[in-house]
Amino acid sequence: MTILSDIEIANQVEMLPIKEVANKLGIPEDSLSLYGNYKAKINVSKLNDLEDTNRGKLILVTAITPTPAGEGKTTTSVGLVDALSKIDKKAAIALREPSLGPVFGVKGGAAGGGYAQVVPMEDINLHFTGDFHAIGAANNLLAAMLDNHIHQGNALGIDSRRITWKRVVDMNDRQLRHVVDGLQGRVNGVPREDGFDITVASEIMAVLCLANNITDLKEKLSQIIIGYSFEGKPVTAKDLKAEGVMTALLKEAIQPNIVQTLEHSPAFIHGGPFANIAHGCNSVLATKLALKYADYAVTEAGFGADLGAEKFVDIKCRLANLSPDAVVLVATIRALKMHGGMKKADLANESVDAVIKGLPNLEKHLSNIQEVYGMPVVVAINKFPTDTEAELEAVKKACQQRNVDVALSDVWANGGAGGVDLANKVIELTERQSNFSFVYEGTDSIEEKLTKIVQKVYGGKGVELAPVARKELAELEKLGFGEYPICMAKTQYSFSDDATLLGAPTDFTVKIRNLRVSAGAGFIVALTGAVMTMPGLPKSPAAERIDVDSEGNISGLF
Amino acid sequence: MTILSDIEIANQVEMLPIKEVANKLGIPEDSLSLYGNYKAKINVSKLNDLEDTNRGKLILVTAITPTPAGEGKTTTSVGLVDALSKIDKKAAIALREPSLGPVFGVKGGAAGGGYAQVVPMEDINLHFTGDFHAIGAANNLLAAMLDNHIHQGNALGIDSRRITWKRVVDMNDRQLRHVVDGLQGRVNGVPREDGFDITVASEIMAVLCLANNITDLKEKLSQIIIGYSFEGKPVTAKDLKAEGVMTALLKEAIQPNIVQTLEHSPAFIHGGPFANIAHGCNSVLATKLALKYADYAVTEAGFGADLGAEKFVDIKCRLANLSPDAVVLVATIRALKMHGGMKKADLANESVDAVIKGLPNLEKHLSNIQEVYGMPVVVAINKFPTDTEAELEAVKKACQQRNVDVALSDVWANGGAGGVDLANKVIELTERQSNFSFVYEGTDSIEEKLTKIVQKVYGGKGVELAPVARKELAELEKLGFGEYPICMAKTQYSFSDDATLLGAPTDFTVKIRNLRVSAGAGFIVALTGAVMTMPGLPKSPAAERIDVDSEGNISGLF
Repeated sequence: MTILSDIEIANQVEMLPIKEVANKLGIPEDSLSLYGNYKAKINVSKLNDLEDTNRGKLILVTAITPTPAGEGKTTTSVGLVDALSKIDKKAAIALREPSLGPVFGVKGGAAGGGYAQVVPMEDINLHFTGDFHAIGAANNLLAAMLDNHIHQGNALGIDSRRITWKRVVDMNDRQLRHVVDGLQGRVNGVPREDGFDITVASEIMAVLCLANNITDLKEKLSQIIIGYSFEGKPVTAKDLKAEGVMTALLKEAIQPNIVQTLEHSPAFIHGGPFANIAHGCNSVLATKLALKYADYAVTEAGFGADLGAEKFVDIKCRLANLSPDAVVLVATIRALKMHGGMKKADLANESVDAVIKGLPNLEKHLSNIQEVYGMPVVVAINKFPTDTEAELEAVKKACQQRNVDVALSDVWANGGAGGVDLANKVIELTERQSNFSFVYEGTDSIEEKLTKIVQKVYGGKGVELAPVARKELAELEKLGFGEYPICMAKTQYSFSDDATLLGAPTDFTVKIRNLRVSAGAGFIVALTGAVMTMPGLPKSPAAERIDVDSEGNISGLF
Repeated sequence: MTILSDIEIANQVEMLPIKEVANKLGIPEDSLSLYGNYKAKINVSKLNDLEDTNRGKLILVTAITPTPAGEGKTTTSVGLVDALSKIDKKAAIALREPSLGPVFGVKGGAAGGGYAQVVPMEDINLHFTGDFHAIGAANNLLAAMLDNHIHQGNALGIDSRRITWKRVVDMNDRQLRHVVDGLQGRVNGVPREDGFDITVASEIMAVLCLANNITDLKEKLSQIIIGYSFEGKPVTAKDLKAEGVMTALLKEAIQPNIVQTLEHSPAFIHGGPFANIAHGCNSVLATKLALKYADYAVTEAGFGADLGAEKFVDIKCRLANLSPDAVVLVATIRALKMHGGMKKADLANESVDAVIKGLPNLEKHLSNIQEVYGMPVVVAINKFPTDTEAELEAVKKACQQRNVDVALSDVWANGGAGGVDLANKVIELTERQSNFSFVYEGTDSIEEKLTKIVQKVYGGKGVELAPVARKELAELEKLGFGEYPICMAKTQYSFSDDATLLGAPTDFTVKIRNLRVSAGAGFIVALTGAVMTMPGLPKSPAAERIDVDSEGNISGLF
């Protein structure tokens, strides 16, 4: 049997007109703005209140501590919604949009895989409906207005050594990480150190994903801090009179996009903030749309459950007043074996022993979800051909002891049909009582919040603030940001801040190097190490192999 | 009577669904890709041969030497197509897309004005269908691949001191004109001098506008020169294996956009290259679409007839095998008075004398159009309330002596009804014999071409090449670019290269400072002075006054 590539599978499927897909959910046709036949934006201001009580069940898909290959969260999420549709449930999925930059590097797209994909995949992975371009334009207009303000006399007294706002491009471009701009004389700006991030790292991306409507968007944008004055006062986008024009640039981008899975389930793909310096979830509006129109709304959060699910709970659910009904924890036998100490080269070999040694990672995530976040959970094992019965049995046994169901997910190879067992178990979970709760309270001090995350979720002893972080903490509290939730920027490869500590480490301390506020998005970012906000291209970038023929058919994309 | 702003007028009009507008021309519905109800892209690969013989008449709208306020070419063009529609002709217009950057500066949009506008004007002036974003992404991906190549070992031996390819943003951002990037150590690129242009100045914009189809686009992209090796050899996009992925990014952008005028005439708005370092015309594909489906295709070229019309003839028509049937030369009484020596502050006062003194500018343009380009021409006076009968009479009399008709255009105030006289005169012109010819032959040497443009079109004595330009000329001929047409980068405010020489100067020499090749677009740029390829924002940018309400209605845009 030939194994088809993702793009070959995607191209084999006849998509439904997106109008029909939206119609299945009962979304009014006059709220749709079509982008071709298979993509549309939904004008949420034309819909009735998104906060209505007739809500569906909210299902979060998260994962154990991932390995560099990823555990297949998106694939499992897409397969789950197709499985729910297959057993005649009204289901929809809400996912992040992929970034253009990484498509040209190593990885390829981010729209699921195999027979569990979202389509039209080429469009979704290239410009889609232009949301990221609009975010880039709004971000860079703010930067241009900022530097123009300084150039034209600097009435606000902005200290060019303390500017925190960077320009962005949706590109992996290490050359732009650190620059000096404004060179060559007085007509060409004011020389200063500067730098570029990739678009998804823009605070505007986080703002767009957390905004409840266009007024809320403008309010959040106005609060963005672009730097500090010579007197040390924060300077905001509002001080530069930039919030109105930025909102104008984003007025289409804030409207959620609807596309479809390979099996024609509705998919809201909207927003894609970083999962380290931001909260790593699709937009609040997309999630609320899915909840309003579907009985089962499946969504996911970036990285493993220590990072992604924690931020989903403490940032997104808190700020958007959401309450999840069930959690799917995705695991692979391969990843468990790595957590059990097996080398990457050996992962194809059976080793029940390694699986058992890796189980504490799974178990710590389960206990977090059940006891800290207070949510019912099912484990989904994303099936690989090398998995053996004995290995799978070891996982099931461990889960039984915690009274947790395990479902084998084969959606990559079989689409929705490969996820029916998982879907039934998820439905059963959503009937149970959820004791959803946050990890900390907003009124806790910043240090208490950090400590609770580390002790309750990560299993560590506590936090250690670097002297500069302690100074930043004092300043943030003085400026009135003390009640903001925390956004941890930590390695995704360990519960700790040390990527080499696999499994379920204890007895570690998390070192906080810096504390910064994203005043527009509404959270404090705790940096535990250097965070890459502008990737680079590899030696042989995927871009070199992408091509298009005379009919416009793209090849080499995946 | 209250005078409404452009956006107020635009918002009063009920647009037709764009499907109906396209249907009026007989464009097959399955070639349309809708972007909402009022914008669409046309998939030209689904159409029959665009080169077919059943062509409409091609009408070029150009202008006398402009004043800083502009003479109203776009407004006249839009009004003309509405007037043609009004007298039951099948007419369409092909125009450039406006750039996002200047919208936030001083000027506002570029979609006509008053009752002669193209709509939906907000969309057209903001992101439209994403073409400029796609061009920016393709441009910046090439830059990222270039710097990544150097960073990863520089197998091509690119000399980082001789890189000519710049990054772009669609923003007025002087701070980015001159930068040093690749700073802070070996993992962050290779330090070098660099800079950013505004997106419309990208050679990719010119390439897209001159491409006949997707294969031609890829071929042209592959020939773009990004810099030179240590041995002095040109390094191309093909050497970096970038042409395939760039074409993939542009596969939607190359499809022309269709929108409508306020009176529902079809408008193809596509591409918008600079009129100095590029040729300043909308895309070849949009012009050919208008010619294929309409009996009268109205288009325009940037700046005055010395620059815009010359490039339209010698670059666009030559490369795309087009042959215009008639020319409309737009003039204003105010501009003629300025050419006659009147001060800006006095322009509202009647002065037949100043008009008469300014007429040599009009007459020189008329003689160029008739005798150099060999095309029938009508003068359109774009009417202002301060114009007097006696002033208008002076213009008519001068034109009569050349056997040229004059039409008063009042389309700004009255839409198509204000342009019926002009429309009838244009139709009559298109029945005449055209003796269309180029200003020079491709086989002329570069210096011969430059000399012919200056002597025949500008009325000067000849050219004077700076020593460095002479060296560049030799190198370009050696590299095999000697037969490329010339793209003059010269002030638009004078026939000469001195912006202060109004009227119809003679006895001047044009000094060529540099000669550069745009090898992808297929022309040699002759620089006569410093050309601004990245504007800046003014002290009080329009951006500060743009806002959007909770329903998404934009204000302050115009």
